[in-house]
Amino acid sequence: MMQKQEDVQPSALKIIPLGGLGEIGLNMMVLEYEDTIVVIDAGLMFPEEDMLGIDIVIPDFTYLQKNRNRVRALLVTHGHEDHIGAIPFLLREVPVPIYATTLTLALIKEKLKEHGLLERSELCRVEPRETIGIGPFDIEFIQVCHSIPDGVGLAIRTPVGVIIHSGDFKIDNTPVDGRRFDMARFGKYGEQGVLALFADSTNVERPGYTLSEKDVGATLRDIFRECSGRIIVAVFASNLHRIQQVVQLAREFGRRVLLNGRSMVINVRIARELGYIDFPGDDEITLQDLAYLPDSEVLMLTTGSQGEPMSALTRMAFNDHKKLKVKPGDTIVLSSKFIPGNERTIQNIINHLYRHGAEVIYEQVRDIHVSGHAYREELKAMINVVQPNYFIPVHGEFRHLVKHRQLAVDTGVPEENCLLIENGGVVEFYPDGVLTGEHVETGRVLVDGKGVGDVGGLVLRDRRHLSEDGMVIASLVFNKETQELVSGPDILSRGFIHEEAKPELLDDAKCVIFETIDKQLSEGAELDCTVLQEDIRRELKRFFNRVLDRRPVIYPIVVEI
Amino acid sequence: MMQKQEDVQPSALKIIPLGGLGEIGLNMMVLEYEDTIVVIDAGLMFPEEDMLGIDIVIPDFTYLQKNRNRVRALLVTHGHEDHIGAIPFLLREVPVPIYATTLTLALIKEKLKEHGLLERSELCRVEPRETIGIGPFDIEFIQVCHSIPDGVGLAIRTPVGVIIHSGDFKIDNTPVDGRRFDMARFGKYGEQGVLALFADSTNVERPGYTLSEKDVGATLRDIFRECSGRIIVAVFASNLHRIQQVVQLAREFGRRVLLNGRSMVINVRIARELGYIDFPGDDEITLQDLAYLPDSEVLMLTTGSQGEPMSALTRMAFNDHKKLKVKPGDTIVLSSKFIPGNERTIQNIINHLYRHGAEVIYEQVRDIHVSGHAYREELKAMINVVQPNYFIPVHGEFRHLVKHRQLAVDTGVPEENCLLIENGGVVEFYPDGVLTGEHVETGRVLVDGKGVGDVGGLVLRDRRHLSEDGMVIASLVFNKETQELVSGPDILSRGFIHEEAKPELLDDAKCVIFETIDKQLSEGAELDCTVLQEDIRRELKRFFNRVLDRRPVIYPIVVEI
Repeated sequence: MMQKQEDVQPSALKIIPLGGLGEIGLNMMVLEYEDTIVVIDAGLMFPEEDMLGIDIVIPDFTYLQKNRNRVRALLVTHGHEDHIGAIPFLLREVPVPIYATTLTLALIKEKLKEHGLLERSELCRVEPRETIGIGPFDIEFIQVCHSIPDGVGLAIRTPVGVIIHSGDFKIDNTPVDGRRFDMARFGKYGEQGVLALFADSTNVERPGYTLSEKDVGATLRDIFRECSGRIIVAVFASNLHRIQQVVQLAREFGRRVLLNGRSMVINVRIARELGYIDFPGDDEITLQDLAYLPDSEVLMLTTGSQGEPMSALTRMAFNDHKKLKVKPGDTIVLSSKFIPGNERTIQNIINHLYRHGAEVIYEQVRDIHVSGHAYREELKAMINVVQPNYFIPVHGEFRHLVKHRQLAVDTGVPEENCLLIENGGVVEFYPDGVLTGEHVETGRVLVDGKGVGDVGGLVLRDRRHLSEDGMVIASLVFNKETQELVSGPDILSRGFIHEEAKPELLDDAKCVIFETIDKQLSEGAELDCTVLQEDIRRELKRFFNRVLDRRPVIYPIVVEI
Repeated sequence: MMQKQEDVQPSALKIIPLGGLGEIGLNMMVLEYEDTIVVIDAGLMFPEEDMLGIDIVIPDFTYLQKNRNRVRALLVTHGHEDHIGAIPFLLREVPVPIYATTLTLALIKEKLKEHGLLERSELCRVEPRETIGIGPFDIEFIQVCHSIPDGVGLAIRTPVGVIIHSGDFKIDNTPVDGRRFDMARFGKYGEQGVLALFADSTNVERPGYTLSEKDVGATLRDIFRECSGRIIVAVFASNLHRIQQVVQLAREFGRRVLLNGRSMVINVRIARELGYIDFPGDDEITLQDLAYLPDSEVLMLTTGSQGEPMSALTRMAFNDHKKLKVKPGDTIVLSSKFIPGNERTIQNIINHLYRHGAEVIYEQVRDIHVSGHAYREELKAMINVVQPNYFIPVHGEFRHLVKHRQLAVDTGVPEENCLLIENGGVVEFYPDGVLTGEHVETGRVLVDGKGVGDVGGLVLRDRRHLSEDGMVIASLVFNKETQELVSGPDILSRGFIHEEAKPELLDDAKCVIFETIDKQLSEGAELDCTVLQEDIRRELKRFFNRVLDRRPVIYPIVVEI
């Protein structure tokens, strides 16, 4: 009997991050108990600098594909791309019902429509404080503050204990929409006992508290008070709190609002339909209205705060917009942070706006942005209210996770219970303890056009090489019987050199090829296609390296007939 | 007689910026009176993101080449690359004596040696407060503070009035080397009357005053106090004040110093030889010494604070350094700012250092860097002490120039005397006024390997295109007489797709080519090389766009024999 009992291992609650631990973006986490899997978020990441030509990056879903029959729900914390952007790709592989709050669900719906997936999707709307049951899990959605409305954290009651996932959050005590961070609910779970807290690490390097979104409103009001020309505010289309404040200020200062940019128009429409923004239709104008409205009565809300090349703001800066011209007297407010990697582009746009005589206001010169992610004191508050037995930092690069782990230790969570997990690392919770060490397949899948995963390291290395010194193609045809050149050598180059600057260069390169052929012939051997190709490549490489110190991709095409 | 007098136009003092106005870097300015030209600085710029494969950027010297017989002196304000980096390229085109202070001259010498130009160069050492005469100009070198020792501003007495050029400066009242910003000299010229001030605009967006370099020393001392393991400080090799402070702290805390990185070793050697650093040889150790020294007695000074790929720090982070491994207990201090464009790379390195168990300290988490450029209050102080009749902001992107101009207006310079000039814009000072509007040829010249100026917009556009979707080469040979394919079509791709992911794709592309040939033949016409090439390009483009939504560079090579 004893023997038997020992054999019956209690089931484990497994938690497996598939993305977002060790990187910003790609947020995705698996919860698993016996035959039930639920997934939290399915986000994308925008390509890093060295991912040339890549459109977006999504997590590797292999683990979910292998276990697709057990996947019962996708729980989405909020509507940002790094939490919903991979959903269409996931649904194609693993159809699963999606649970999210009203606005989040509407944004997901819009995305699925674009991908032609709406018909075959199952979308389930939930409310904050609502609890749903999925197999052995009871999941409550808990309201949090963030830079998009309707964000939630999750409290998941499992057979092994309660798991809290913070989602992306900040503690804004004066939120624009009055929807407060639901401290009471987190506290209730904390009092009852929480097995583990998974919390957002994005801003763990920042001391103190984030400012309230309303503080931005105050700075914006000052700007409205000072400006007599047109005001153009660039903001993320998802930052509906910010948009709400701008719209309200417009009304207060007698300005009417022009919306610019596809996602701005869509998001405002959705937010209006669902009651997430107070923006009467009368306050809105069209491009045509600009002609007769005085500048002092115009407010434009636009996308493009990150210098996106096709955005209205970028086109206006480069004088490339048919209907909108920037002019002296205009004030342009970039009301968002410069995402690392975009700084040079944005600064370039700012310079061009100044060239047109406009005034430009941005985070470096005035407080017109606040973060949506909790700073250190808020992170401590979250740990204190939840009182978790275990703590696992999520949503951050490796250094953020290390620092957030240390912060939890400093806040009083026992050091051995603060786990540093990376993508693919499995955490197994048993009634009597925790196990780590197992790993599942994860990674990043690159999306380029319609191709998902068909561009990898090798292709990117080639793109890098081509981008650095361009390419040179040398082609020739020779007759095997007569051992004579029938055509060529011809040389083409691209991205290599401005040929008019050194007209003799490619002629010299042809001479190199002739010499290479002569050398092979003089050695008495018959011309060999493969050998000749390799010889030409090597000799041209040497030649270009010597005369120009450049290493283009060289493609010799030798055809024998 | 009256007529005659009116014909004798008084000569103008012409000032022509050839670089650095509208950009950070490329600093270079021309002063010209009758048959004398002097040049201030000849700096480079590191390539911007879209300058694929480019090594460095230098100003266009056309104007100086055209007037080479009149160019009498190059005056150099300090030894940073954005002020001396283009000197070798300038000297090849326009031989000219170089005037600079001791350390600056030594750094220039090192650079000319590398370029094999030292023998034919004329280097003239000057001291602060020394005045030299060049034709109609009397030039005094005035000591300023900056993030490299031995920086100077210039006071140039001309027949039309005194010109002050600030160089790069900050007002550090407690400089590490005791060499103070020479307020008295600037004041003396101010009292006597200054025609025009040209001043550094880099930090015009920052309110208040820069901290003193000594403040960094205080933070570094705290770090030394806290650390018991090895300390590794990454810093610009030219920041000899910082290096001095670190070396002094090492002595104070009983650590010996390992220098790492080529430019670190060279700069410290030069500074030692010239007495610009107090660093006894006994304090220095070699890699071999690490074996027997306890970690608490080791201090390493290294380059690589910008994540340069070949630097020791980067190789250590990626575990790619044969002799140096990062380990738990190490503290790595990145004591410099993250230059925009390098953030992602540096953050990546920080994450990797944390993975090895090290602690990393950087500007975002602790005050271990100060700027070498004056903040707003210092800029105002400079204007107040010089009391210029005219003010022209230099060294900055367009927005900086606009804001610096406004700052001068706010400080009391008449608005009409604050000029906004861009590269190539000529300012002509006459005894009775100023003229602007004329322009000379300027621009940026790209250096790629040994090629100077042979890569331009078109080549860069091709590199960009190649980097985004790679390339596809389709080759075939046909017999003109028989109108039959003799060889091919063959298809090669690079940077386009991981072929194993879609093995059928290139076969399908071949079918597209066969169809294109058949279509031409079925129309009864003879195969035409050029037409066929164009048709194949177009059809392949359509095909790849349709099936993959990608636009590779397509090169059809059709040979007829």
